[in-house]
Amino acid sequence: MLQPPPAQPGMREDEIDTPALLIDLDAFEHNLDRMAALLRPTGARLRAHAKTHKSPVIAHLQAARGAVGQCVQKVAEAEALAWGGVPDILVTNEVVGDAKLARLLALSRIARVAVCADDPANVARIEAAAAASGQRMAVLVEIDVGMARAGVAPGPDAVALAEQIAGSPHLAFGGLQAYHGAAQHVRTAEGRQEAVGRAVDDTRRTVEQLRQRGLSCAIVGGAGTGTFELEAASGVYNEIQAGSYCFMDADYRRNRDGVSDGFQQALFVLSGVMSAARPGLAVLDAGHKAVAVDSGLPLVWRREDVRYTGASDEHGKLEWGAETSGPRLGEKLRLVPGHCDPTVDRYDWYVGVRGGWVECLWPVAARGGLA
Amino acid sequence: MLQPPPAQPGMREDEIDTPALLIDLDAFEHNLDRMAALLRPTGARLRAHAKTHKSPVIAHLQAARGAVGQCVQKVAEAEALAWGGVPDILVTNEVVGDAKLARLLALSRIARVAVCADDPANVARIEAAAAASGQRMAVLVEIDVGMARAGVAPGPDAVALAEQIAGSPHLAFGGLQAYHGAAQHVRTAEGRQEAVGRAVDDTRRTVEQLRQRGLSCAIVGGAGTGTFELEAASGVYNEIQAGSYCFMDADYRRNRDGVSDGFQQALFVLSGVMSAARPGLAVLDAGHKAVAVDSGLPLVWRREDVRYTGASDEHGKLEWGAETSGPRLGEKLRLVPGHCDPTVDRYDWYVGVRGGWVECLWPVAARGGLA
Repeated sequence: MLQPPPAQPGMREDEIDTPALLIDLDAFEHNLDRMAALLRPTGARLRAHAKTHKSPVIAHLQAARGAVGQCVQKVAEAEALAWGGVPDILVTNEVVGDAKLARLLALSRIARVAVCADDPANVARIEAAAAASGQRMAVLVEIDVGMARAGVAPGPDAVALAEQIAGSPHLAFGGLQAYHGAAQHVRTAEGRQEAVGRAVDDTRRTVEQLRQRGLSCAIVGGAGTGTFELEAASGVYNEIQAGSYCFMDADYRRNRDGVSDGFQQALFVLSGVMSAARPGLAVLDAGHKAVAVDSGLPLVWRREDVRYTGASDEHGKLEWGAETSGPRLGEKLRLVPGHCDPTVDRYDWYVGVRGGWVECLWPVAARGGLA
Repeated sequence: MLQPPPAQPGMREDEIDTPALLIDLDAFEHNLDRMAALLRPTGARLRAHAKTHKSPVIAHLQAARGAVGQCVQKVAEAEALAWGGVPDILVTNEVVGDAKLARLLALSRIARVAVCADDPANVARIEAAAAASGQRMAVLVEIDVGMARAGVAPGPDAVALAEQIAGSPHLAFGGLQAYHGAAQHVRTAEGRQEAVGRAVDDTRRTVEQLRQRGLSCAIVGGAGTGTFELEAASGVYNEIQAGSYCFMDADYRRNRDGVSDGFQQALFVLSGVMSAARPGLAVLDAGHKAVAVDSGLPLVWRREDVRYTGASDEHGKLEWGAETSGPRLGEKLRLVPGHCDPTVDRYDWYVGVRGGWVECLWPVAARGGLA
């Protein structure tokens, strides 16, 4: 069952029921415009990552500002986008299992869909699935450029897998997936430069080795909000996969000297005080079921005198010092999530607000899309 | 949009798509029976907590074994139960805001619904909402017996609030809510006994003071899976609000000398290996979007040689020592979630399995019910 929306267009912001997932539309549109402006001089294309927003509405707004397509992590996310009219989708992940591959090939009939691989047996299964559906599918080779997770080693292993793809009758070699997500959360600019520098070197070397074997990379993709200007300036990456930039979160805000400075906080959880029975403590109706805490606790927006100090399933604790007075029972506060992507996944609806009014509702179309 | 179910009844377990939320039906039914057997000699009633299962189907199975009703944390959870035919529901939480109170009173027309309060102004709003709807509602006083979160102090503050409720024309004083959730996660039996002992003393004293003012407590409720035998034996608590016992999780399994020994692990996340490109490492398709990690990482079921060592949004890392061989690409493994309640909230469907076959699908009806 879908949850009913916590607001309707035309309401005042303070009438929104809590907890609710808010988009500050002015800040959000600023972020979309700013990313387009930052990438324009680099020549790198934006393929925005929908693992953040899970919304065809937002994908279309990004496309209107020049994004060439969308990235997703999951087949279920690809479905939500394709069914919402998004024409060009890259699954930046391995897809394993015949049921998932059949779903992906079904989407190929209504959108351009590509997928990543890091295993020869998996490539053979993708070829078999494509052959069975009578279609061709582009497959990128994922290389491990520092995440120590998925991906083959840069260099000869990647070239061998690319040659297998290129030699498969129903597959096309689509390029390289070279994502160093961890680099984005290194706190200093020097640290991020060093990590991305190694990823760029590995990727450049692999692109060159592929070129020597006659294989060109239509896509050399990677990067995220924390580092994208480095990859965009590298001359190697041609597609930037940033997602969080449209919303931002408390974790990205902790980066110092950010290459991504200038993005505004656009995503909030609106939460209400449901108990204020103890002195110096208020209890919010948003615990970690309503705001993801895997990358730290949320911040209270424009209330630096009040701290969110603990999250249980359905409760958040607010504390403050003697110099200030705490929020009242029933008061509604905006929280800045520690991590935007998994917070979005907790909700069925975005509530778009501007100037104190509810302007729109958008479904979080791929919420819960784990497959 | 709801996600499609990852299986159909009649499939083999190894055909279930991943990630999926499994109930081992034999273990689950054992747990329901065992709780009924443990409580029968104590005289305490079971009002099982639906914050764990979020399912009217499971509520009815609990009622069939003697549960007198259900607890919920949220109005949205109460709705999912009442709409699914559950006749007796206690919101074990404060409900603040006229929109939520109106929803709760709407439910009162199809089910018996009670709510907790810890604030005089909130009691006045509940009275106003009940009057506006032309109904009476039972209100329990929540007392703080060790959580340091919501609830008034035991003793005179609680009595004063109870008198306000009893004196409100459209309210009935329903008793005390005295939940010490933190006591359940104390690792030693002695520590749990000490914490619950203090809660029992506070509650007993408050019940006695209420009695002296002519107020009797139809419900004295609290307790959970980690401590319920202590509260049930106290002679003070008459309703036990355990939820997790039906599923269990890795956190409860870490309790030593558990009063709740003898419950079996019945909830699993079925996850598939999506990448095995690096030696000694396999990547699962279940990260912290698919299995809650707020109370620790999941365990791998019946594979003590393999450890789940890290969760990112969509990936879980599996590692193992040189003495064993890791799982293959595409292999499916059962994970024991660190914390059952928020893990359930990530899914639209339960897949009930027995003897290696899919027996049923049940909707997680209150998934995402944050309001």
